[in-house]
Amino acid sequence: MDNNIRVIEIKKSIYEDNDREAACLRERLREEKTFLLNLMSSPGSGKTSLIVRTIERLGAKRRIGVMEADIDSAVDAETVAAAGAKAVQLHTGGMCHLDAGMTGEGLAALGTAGLDLVILENVGNLVCPAEFDTGAFKNVMILSVPEGDDKPLKYPLMFSTVDCMIINKTDVLPYFDFDMEAAEKHAKALNPDIAIFAVSAKTGEGIEAWCDWLDREVTEWNG
Amino acid sequence: MDNNIRVIEIKKSIYEDNDREAACLRERLREEKTFLLNLMSSPGSGKTSLIVRTIERLGAKRRIGVMEADIDSAVDAETVAAAGAKAVQLHTGGMCHLDAGMTGEGLAALGTAGLDLVILENVGNLVCPAEFDTGAFKNVMILSVPEGDDKPLKYPLMFSTVDCMIINKTDVLPYFDFDMEAAEKHAKALNPDIAIFAVSAKTGEGIEAWCDWLDREVTEWNG
Repeated sequence: MDNNIRVIEIKKSIYEDNDREAACLRERLREEKTFLLNLMSSPGSGKTSLIVRTIERLGAKRRIGVMEADIDSAVDAETVAAAGAKAVQLHTGGMCHLDAGMTGEGLAALGTAGLDLVILENVGNLVCPAEFDTGAFKNVMILSVPEGDDKPLKYPLMFSTVDCMIINKTDVLPYFDFDMEAAEKHAKALNPDIAIFAVSAKTGEGIEAWCDWLDREVTEWNG
Repeated sequence: MDNNIRVIEIKKSIYEDNDREAACLRERLREEKTFLLNLMSSPGSGKTSLIVRTIERLGAKRRIGVMEADIDSAVDAETVAAAGAKAVQLHTGGMCHLDAGMTGEGLAALGTAGLDLVILENVGNLVCPAEFDTGAFKNVMILSVPEGDDKPLKYPLMFSTVDCMIINKTDVLPYFDFDMEAAEKHAKALNPDIAIFAVSAKTGEGIEAWCDWLDREVTEWNG
């Protein structure tokens, strides 16, 4: 028990430092007219595939950069660069989330000059990334159909803090016991204003509505 | 950067305390002849379903207890209790993993007297749980088919530290681009001695081989 309490106290001071750093970063990005989106989900929910679809749809209109955070490997940055975006791979050295400091370092490595939109693909994790403000303007999460419609009940902070939930892999709905209405109901109980889009990054179904939402958000912030 | 370094130093001292506590817990469980299994995976990979199948197969031979760790909700403990095991739900208060101290508290709440096997269902997370010794005798992870065969490349610590990897949801293999051989190859490159079982907790396919392995491990430790 003592051990527990100690961890939590340490985390509090880290949060306060991080919140200040995130606010600074957001202010700087607003001046530069670069919109930062933080994309979170479990491992394998389809973050990279969604980013590739988003580049395909918005890439002609918006200059897009992508930061791919992973504990190891450069698989995702290679995929995204092949889709035509400016990309960097961030290795988190075992860290389970990105904070504002790490995000700032990533943005410096990417080089934001001339970019309208930077997408941060966070570490695949439904817990820790929800606790740290990265400096993003909007936070978006993916819940994929195979994970189950009960996830908002188990990981409430993530579903409470995001601006938008994307339900991905709708192409495999026939093969899983996933109740779309239940997932939406659970998410809205925690977060009544959450925007929800159902998509299949594999087939492209539903990508247009998600990209229209994102494009409106970029316009609203950056003009 | 300073912020980063500070976190890592704090974590080091936490690890050392935790390792001592885990070793103590393991010694006590060995004397009591209770085998502790730590089961880890991403959210929605099928930990609870696998536990239910394991209770069905081994419950007549072994007295089984289950600790269901979640940030919130009691959905899983209810499911497991309905399958006939002694079960408790542990709420982690936002923590993204279980350490030995929390596991010890859970065991006290469960009551281990007369139990041959206790299964700890860890928080759904491929990152943090791999960093903390819970006091378990064996560590097992699930990789489910929809998550993709590249996960060992991205979450290497998890795949390096476990004794066994269960590839779950083989019933949906036809609907996903999942290469079974690639998944095994990536995992064995990190962990040559890893035991691997392919199962469908939904249909029951492959459950027998997994349960035989677990039963042998329990016999080896507890007699």
